[in-house]
Amino acid sequence: MAEAPGDDTGARRSAVIDLGSNSFRLVVFTAAPGAWWRRTDEIFEPVRIGAGMGKSGRLTAKRMSRALTTIETYAHYLRASGIPPADVQAVATSAIRDAANRDEFLACAREASGLDVRVLSPAEEARYGYLAAINSTTLSDGAVLDLGGGSLQLVGVRDRLAADVGSWPLGTIRMTERCLDDKPATKKQLKAVRARVREELESARWVGKGGPRLVGIGGTVRNLAAAAQRRAELPSFGVQGYVLDREALGALISDLAALPAAERGSVPGIKPERGDVILAGATVIDAALEAAGYEAIEVTEAGLREGVFFDGHLAPAEPRLFPDVRAASVRNLAAQYHADAPHVLHVVSLCLGLFDALATGGVHPGDESERELLWAAAMLHDIGMTVDYDDHHKHSRYLILNAGLPGYSPREVALISLMAQYHRKGSPGFGELSALMGDGDDARLDRCSALLRLAEQLERARDQVVRETRVEVHDGSVELELVSGGDTGIAQWAAERQADLFERAFGRRLEVTAG
Amino acid sequence: MAEAPGDDTGARRSAVIDLGSNSFRLVVFTAAPGAWWRRTDEIFEPVRIGAGMGKSGRLTAKRMSRALTTIETYAHYLRASGIPPADVQAVATSAIRDAANRDEFLACAREASGLDVRVLSPAEEARYGYLAAINSTTLSDGAVLDLGGGSLQLVGVRDRLAADVGSWPLGTIRMTERCLDDKPATKKQLKAVRARVREELESARWVGKGGPRLVGIGGTVRNLAAAAQRRAELPSFGVQGYVLDREALGALISDLAALPAAERGSVPGIKPERGDVILAGATVIDAALEAAGYEAIEVTEAGLREGVFFDGHLAPAEPRLFPDVRAASVRNLAAQYHADAPHVLHVVSLCLGLFDALATGGVHPGDESERELLWAAAMLHDIGMTVDYDDHHKHSRYLILNAGLPGYSPREVALISLMAQYHRKGSPGFGELSALMGDGDDARLDRCSALLRLAEQLERARDQVVRETRVEVHDGSVELELVSGGDTGIAQWAAERQADLFERAFGRRLEVTAG
Repeated sequence: MAEAPGDDTGARRSAVIDLGSNSFRLVVFTAAPGAWWRRTDEIFEPVRIGAGMGKSGRLTAKRMSRALTTIETYAHYLRASGIPPADVQAVATSAIRDAANRDEFLACAREASGLDVRVLSPAEEARYGYLAAINSTTLSDGAVLDLGGGSLQLVGVRDRLAADVGSWPLGTIRMTERCLDDKPATKKQLKAVRARVREELESARWVGKGGPRLVGIGGTVRNLAAAAQRRAELPSFGVQGYVLDREALGALISDLAALPAAERGSVPGIKPERGDVILAGATVIDAALEAAGYEAIEVTEAGLREGVFFDGHLAPAEPRLFPDVRAASVRNLAAQYHADAPHVLHVVSLCLGLFDALATGGVHPGDESERELLWAAAMLHDIGMTVDYDDHHKHSRYLILNAGLPGYSPREVALISLMAQYHRKGSPGFGELSALMGDGDDARLDRCSALLRLAEQLERARDQVVRETRVEVHDGSVELELVSGGDTGIAQWAAERQADLFERAFGRRLEVTAG
Repeated sequence: MAEAPGDDTGARRSAVIDLGSNSFRLVVFTAAPGAWWRRTDEIFEPVRIGAGMGKSGRLTAKRMSRALTTIETYAHYLRASGIPPADVQAVATSAIRDAANRDEFLACAREASGLDVRVLSPAEEARYGYLAAINSTTLSDGAVLDLGGGSLQLVGVRDRLAADVGSWPLGTIRMTERCLDDKPATKKQLKAVRARVREELESARWVGKGGPRLVGIGGTVRNLAAAAQRRAELPSFGVQGYVLDREALGALISDLAALPAAERGSVPGIKPERGDVILAGATVIDAALEAAGYEAIEVTEAGLREGVFFDGHLAPAEPRLFPDVRAASVRNLAAQYHADAPHVLHVVSLCLGLFDALATGGVHPGDESERELLWAAAMLHDIGMTVDYDDHHKHSRYLILNAGLPGYSPREVALISLMAQYHRKGSPGFGELSALMGDGDDARLDRCSALLRLAEQLERARDQVVRETRVEVHDGSVELELVSGGDTGIAQWAAERQADLFERAFGRRLEVTAG
C-alpha cells in the first residue's frame, strides 16, 4: 500500500549503554540490515559520575550509588524489553577510566546488573566519536572534536580516514571544578580555562593541519548550537549540520559568563541539567578552535553511541564507513516508509532525465549539487502518504524536516523538503524556512519543483507507462515527447496542467506530445 | 516494531467516481476490513457539467466533451493502477439526472470509458449524503444539508436514522445562473435567491423539527467554513467539525457580494474554481438555515463519495452506521500505525484505571467526556514513532491534528493531540492551539497529561509488569501501589519522576510503592 510505511521484516534491535562522565544513556537501535536503521528508544540520566573527583581522583560514593541505580534500571529495561545480552554493548569513558576506584565500581556494576562494562581507552573513545562524525557528515579532510564531561578528543581526518588521535583531560566537569565557581565568571577565570587548553594542545601540533573543516560531537556542542540557533532566531529542526562560528560562540560565552552558574541552564537551547558546566565547555571549545586555527565548528547530532552502533552495523566493511553519507541518509529515510517503490524510482529517473536533457539543451545550468537535491526530493516525495492522503505533499515536508538527513546542511534539508512539498501543487515558496535560504535558491526550488511535479504527473497513473521522455528545445518552448509502452492519455493530460510552473521556472512554454 | 506503521495485510482498494453537477471526482479508498480505511488517491476535475443548462435543460456540447475526457482519464487511471471494474462505482447526480440529453451522454460515457454510470435518484443521492454525515459526526437528532451544483438535499435525522428526505433544484450553479451576474451582487439579487429558497422549502414543513443540529456536506459548505476559519484567524487543520454560525456566514455573504464574481475566488479559504458560484451557495445555505430555524451548520469533510464507500464498507450492517463514530475514528487512526499494541492497550487501561480511582477518591470531578478524551490520547500517544524517535510525542500531536478525528470537535481534537504530545515530558500548554480552547481546558489538559504520562512511565519497560495500580488518597498526597507480576524497579523509578506534573494537576504529592 503506497502510504503504508517501513517494512520491518528482519528488523533487529540492539542497545548501546554509554556511561559518560556527565551523563549515562541507554540507546536502542532498530535496524533492518541493508535497508534502514533508526533510534527507537533512549533512557537518559544525568548521573555526573565524574563530579567531585578533583582531589582524590576517586568516584564519589554519592555519584556511584546514583550510577549503580541507573545501571540496574537499564539492565531491568533490557530484560523486560527482551534485548539479549549478546546485543548489548556497555561502554565507559574518561571519568570511569581514570578513577582510582574504577575496578570497585565495575565490580559493583556487574554485581548489580550482570552487565560487563567495557572501559574504552582514549584511542577507542576517539575512534567511536570519529565513526559517529564521519558517518553523519561529509567531512573528508579536517578534524573531529568530541568534548565530554571528562575529556576532549581530537581526531585528525584525511580522506575520511582517522589520522592522528589525541585525548586531553579538558572535559566540562573537570574544567568547571578546576577553574570556575557558582558566581558569574570573571575574565581571569575564563583566561585560566583558555590557558589550560592552550598548554594541553601544545602536544598536538598536527591539529588543524588536516584541513579546513572541524566537526563537533557531544552534548555541549549540541546545546551550544541550539542556543545559537535560538539567538539567531533561525527555524530549528534539530542542530544536525549547523555551523557554529566563533563569533556566535563568543556571544554565547559572554551571555553565559554574565550569569551565575545556577541560571545558565535557563538560556534557551541549553538543557537545565547542563547549565552549570556549559560555560566551561563553551570556553574549552572556543580555545580549542583558536589553538587549532578553525573559524567554526560543524555540529552533528550523532554521538559516541552511534559510533558504537555503526561499528557493528557497518561491519565487516573496513573502514566502517557509509560509501556516501548523503545517499545513505536519503535511502534510510525512504526505506522506513514503504512507498510504492516502482512508482518512486520511476519518478526519480524521469525527473533526472528531464533535468539532464534540459541542461544539455541549455535551458538551465545543470548544476550537480542541484541535481543531487532533486534526486533526494524525488526519492522522498511520497513519504507523507503515511500521515494522510490529503496534503501528503506537506506531510512529506514535515517528515523530511523532522527526521533530518545527516550529511546535508540545514539549508539543503529545507530545500529538499520544499521540493517534496511542491511535487503536487501550490506555488513554490520558502515560507517559514526563508531564513535558511541562499542566493538563487528561489530559482533552484522553482526548477526542481517543476521537474518533480512534471515527472509525478507523467506517473499519475503509477503505471510506468511513460518509459522516458525526449526533449526538444525551441526558443520560447520546450517540446516533451512521451516515449511509452501504451496509452499515455492520462500522463499527457496531467503533465499539461503543469505548464505554468514549468514556464515560470524555465521561461519556456511546455508542449507535451505522445511519441 | 513499535514505530513502524499500518499493517496493510489484506488491504483492498476500491474507487468511487462522483460525477457531480459542479465537479467530477475519482476517489480511491484503501481498507483493511475490520482494521482501518483511508482515502489513498483522488483526481479532481472542475467539469461544471451542470453549467449552461438553464433554458434548454440540456448538457452543453462544451461541458459534455470536457466531461467525457475526464471520464476517459479516470477509466485509464483505473486500468493502469489495476483497480478492477467490480471495485469501481460511478455515480451521477442532479445535473446529469435532470438533463434532457442524459441518455446520449451516458451512452458516450460508456462508449469512451467502458464505465457504467449509475444515475442516483434524489432519494439515493440524499441517502449517500446522509451516510457520509452520520458516519463522520455524532449527529443523532437534526438534519443533514447537502448542497451541490445542481440540487439541495435535506435529510431529517432522528436517533441517527434518516426520517424525511427532500431534494430541491437549488444548486449553486443553477441559482447563480438564475439570479446573479458577474458584477457585485445587489440586495435585490440576493433577495431573489432567498425568496426562491423560501418558496421551495415551503414543501418541507418537517425541516428543523428533527432536532437542534444541522450537519452540512459538499464543497460549498467546506469552502465557506475554511473562509470563516481564516477570517476568525483560527488555527486550521481542515474544517471537520467546524461550526459555521449565521453571523459568520452573514459576514462572508456581504464580503462576497461586494466583489465581482471573478474576484470571489481570491477570498482566503474559497477555491478559485468555485469563486463564481460561492455567493449563490452561501446565500442558499443561509436562507435554508433561516427557513428551517437553525442558528448554525456543522461541517463535515465527508461527502457523497464517502457515503458510497461507507455503504459497501459497513455492509452488511443495517443501517450502515459505525456504532460509535468517535471510537471508530480513534481506532481507525491507531490501526494505521502498528504501534506496540500490548504496550498501548496497557497504557490505556492503566491511565483509565488511575482516572477512575482518583475520581472515586474525590481528587477530581471524573467527567465522562474528559475520560473519553484521555482514552483517545492514550490510544494514539505513540503513533508519532512513525516519524522519528526524537520528539515522537510532538509527532503524535502533528499526526493527530493533520489526520483528524471525525466525530470530535476541533477543540477536542486539539486537546487529544496535546495530551498525546505531553505523554513524555514538557509542561502542558496550548501553544498555537489556544484559540480553540475553552474554560477549564488547561486543568483538563494537566490532569490527562499527568495520568497518561504516569501510565506511560509505569510501562517504561513496555513489559506490562505493572498489572494494575491501587490508589489511596490522603490529604496532601496520593499513594500509588503497584500491583505487579515481577520487578517494578524501573516502573517505580520512572513514575516517581512524574510527581511534579501530578502535583500540579491534582494538588497532591505522589508516592509510588511496590505492592
